[in-house]
Amino acid sequence: MKLTHIDEKNNPKMVNVANKAITQRSAVACGCIKMSEEAFLAVKNNSGKKGAVLQTAIISSIMGAKKTSELIPMCHSLNLSGVSVETQSDEANFIYKLIVSVSCEGKTGVEMEALTGVSIGLLTIYDMVKALDKSMQIFDIMLLEKKGGKSGEFKRL
Amino acid sequence: MKLTHIDEKNNPKMVNVANKAITQRSAVACGCIKMSEEAFLAVKNNSGKKGAVLQTAIISSIMGAKKTSELIPMCHSLNLSGVSVETQSDEANFIYKLIVSVSCEGKTGVEMEALTGVSIGLLTIYDMVKALDKSMQIFDIMLLEKKGGKSGEFKRL
Amino acid sequence: MKLTHIDEKNNPKMVNVANKAITQRSAVACGCIKMSEEAFLAVKNNSGKKGAVLQTAIISSIMGAKKTSELIPMCHSLNLSGVSVETQSDEANFIYKLIVSVSCEGKTGVEMEALTGVSIGLLTIYDMVKALDKSMQIFDIMLLEKKGGKSGEFKRL
Amino acid sequence: MKLTHIDEKNNPKMVNVANKAITQRSAVACGCIKMSEEAFLAVKNNSGKKGAVLQTAIISSIMGAKKTSELIPMCHSLNLSGVSVETQSDEANFIYKLIVSVSCEGKTGVEMEALTGVSIGLLTIYDMVKALDKSMQIFDIMLLEKKGGKSGEFKRL
Amino acid sequence: MKLTHIDEKNNPKMVNVANKAITQRSAVACGCIKMSEEAFLAVKNNSGKKGAVLQTAIISSIMGAKKTSELIPMCHSLNLSGVSVETQSDEANFIYKLIVSVSCEGKTGVEMEALTGVSIGLLTIYDMVKALDKSMQIFDIMLLEKKGGKSGEFKRL
Amino acid sequence: MKLTHIDEKNNPKMVNVANKAITQRSAVACGCIKMSEEAFLAVKNNSGKKGAVLQTAIISSIMGAKKTSELIPMCHSLNLSGVSVETQSDEANFIYKLIVSVSCEGKTGVEMEALTGVSIGLLTIYDMVKALDKSMQIFDIMLLEKKGGKSGEFKRL
Repeated sequence: MKLTHIDEKNNPKMVNVANKAITQRSAVACGCIKMSEEAFLAVKNNSGKKGAVLQTAIISSIMGAKKTSELIPMCHSLNLSGVSVETQSDEANFIYKLIVSVSCEGKTGVEMEALTGVSIGLLTIYDMVKALDKSMQIFDIMLLEKKGGKSGEFKRL
Repeated sequence: MKLTHIDEKNNPKMVNVANKAITQRSAVACGCIKMSEEAFLAVKNNSGKKGAVLQTAIISSIMGAKKTSELIPMCHSLNLSGVSVETQSDEANFIYKLIVSVSCEGKTGVEMEALTGVSIGLLTIYDMVKALDKSMQIFDIMLLEKKGGKSGEFKRL
Repeated sequence: MKLTHIDEKNNPKMVNVANKAITQRSAVACGCIKMSEEAFLAVKNNSGKKGAVLQTAIISSIMGAKKTSELIPMCHSLNLSGVSVETQSDEANFIYKLIVSVSCEGKTGVEMEALTGVSIGLLTIYDMVKALDKSMQIFDIMLLEKKGGKSGEFKRL
Repeated sequence: MKLTHIDEKNNPKMVNVANKAITQRSAVACGCIKMSEEAFLAVKNNSGKKGAVLQTAIISSIMGAKKTSELIPMCHSLNLSGVSVETQSDEANFIYKLIVSVSCEGKTGVEMEALTGVSIGLLTIYDMVKALDKSMQIFDIMLLEKKGGKSGEFKRL
Repeated sequence: MKLTHIDEKNNPKMVNVANKAITQRSAVACGCIKMSEEAFLAVKNNSGKKGAVLQTAIISSIMGAKKTSELIPMCHSLNLSGVSVETQSDEANFIYKLIVSVSCEGKTGVEMEALTGVSIGLLTIYDMVKALDKSMQIFDIMLLEKKGGKSGEFKRL
Repeated sequence: MKLTHIDEKNNPKMVNVANKAITQRSAVACGCIKMSEEAFLAVKNNSGKKGAVLQTAIISSIMGAKKTSELIPMCHSLNLSGVSVETQSDEANFIYKLIVSVSCEGKTGVEMEALTGVSIGLLTIYDMVKALDKSMQIFDIMLLEKKGGKSGEFKRL
């Protein structure tokens, strides 16, 4: 099984997409952070008023998505068409979830941008809550959906 | 319960650490990525020779740790003393694990740097393997250990 | 009146421009900095020989325009076609003025790039002169002209 | 009158602060943006609920302050101790004002960090409101106060 | 003889390429680093196993190529189609050589991206070997080949 | 012979300097670019008036030195105390030379900052002259002098 980012000498390379067509691309990714009840409620009470923790996470998520090609060595830089972030909460289990949607007109997909946006957003929540709970866990970062490009549509079951 | 990064008007702020003492700080964080058997083996065969995928992940992890304060809005910028990354694999479950250790002499802890390093490293593995498996999941990103500073030592059980 | 960068849940978003046409765009913005006579003359004497203060401002202005999407959270990243900077001085009032022109072929306008270039250039003058005058004021940062795109032409009266 | 950032050959240089003492530094800067009544009310109604425009401005202002040494060519990089941002509004004149306070323990002052934070925050407001008003003006960006360092205290009258 | 990046007032400008056609572009550049026998062998033994020094150089070279427009003031930002790096060694003279190939579909050439990739890669080797040899020399950084664009093909003899 | 940046598993690491003393450090590096007579004269005539090419190189050199830890994967980030750049020309051989001096109070040396400053400055000259000469060569990038730290003083003969 061949790894696309490795050349014949086993060195990393940025895949050449010069001959690929420009198409409309989109990707949706999500991820979760689980915390203590106390920490969850502190965020909730703060965020019930459209507060600072979740809004900061949303903004860092969008800015993080734009920085993907600086962070992930073999990623192509892309001019994203749009990024939006949705937050959800699971009150029974003290979990916040971020869902990031990215679109672009280009030669490569935007999965990495959506996943990077999710990761940076969750780390931002961690940072702002860590004084209350050092045991938080980030999990279930994954691709939900992808459209456009040669490999076609992907939808997580 | 008070959130340290929110001011009295419910706006985000970068916490003022001007009066905190400079101490030796360290933090260790980890995180995992689970993939298909086929993808796992492609990385393993490539990495059995100290190959490109895991080495690229290690390098991006170190570079990502250094970029933490650019990515996480309320994080202080710090001059890290050292960053090292260990990779582990769980062959039975097709999982790669990254463990990032960060040290610093400063006024704030380096948990976020360790966690950001882990996240960027895992995203790099995802990027280089995604042509083989679009269903990979990143999980169990968490703090293992933290030393130094007023809040003292933390060790995950 | 609807704010374009806010979604239906009152969260910030990067506006989706996927369906907008690619057109030639340009924008011209300006801004001023007023200082003491002594400071003004120090820059003038230095800059009379194409000196370091105004040239550094011009260069930082161009580099700042290229960094706009990293600085302004909801800005799209764009590949600018060109940036040029003109400096003017008002000797009677000890004012330097920067005029930044930006062009691009893309889906969104380049007003923010021109305005960011102006702002960074003026801050650079401030930085290089601040040992002589701490009371300088930056003012009249505004859009002079904008062409291209659905909203059409704008010209300040 | 000598410009500190210019060497004997009239070239720009980053001033050598190797022999300066490390002291507690702080700076407060402010700046304003004037817009149409319609635009002002759109922000106000949105921000009455701690909404997205002013919170995004606050966050970009803090992140911008941290990026100062990347933007202003001759600025030293510093590890800021804290950054906080206050927003004010002048309802009679349709003006929003940002006040940014920065502190640091170091060898150079943090005026540029406070002023850069103000500028980026105001540009962020401009960006998010520009669909409603293209004639907005940014003005009165200035230093309010500065403490620490050899040149001592500065307070704007 | 006219310098393209200088305007009529002798100030630097980012050349306006708005009216240039979008074509397939590519460039290949190379450069060398000469070190002591001892240092050369340390890298060789390490790299014989696809080791860390040359792989880190390759990765930093790719990431550096992507950062070109941030580093070189008058460079246009471009979305590169691909970057690959080849390493060669001259065992008789204790020299490592990097050859960087860059491709892009755009309005300006990618010579600077290839040359910047080479430079950053060589500096990375220097950094990782400098404890063994402080006298290393970087040399022969030059363009080997260039295709596409109005000025046509260039091939170094 | 042991490479300091490689751990026992042959992976790259950022060397831990936590236990090193903070001392005054400085480094001086240089490098050259050779071009055609025609290109040399174009720069000279432009730069005879303290023109844009060499001043842009000086500024990019200083900004590049500050970016070193972002570019070189295993480099520590440092708060530089000062950076200055000198330009020299060899009229007989059509060569420009940059000499970059960096100082810092810290736990690691600043050789890489001086060498990176030189490299970025030379690439900037290349960029601004490349329309006149595509055959330019960058060479003799090397450390001239280094002071401070455990390894003591180094002076190139």
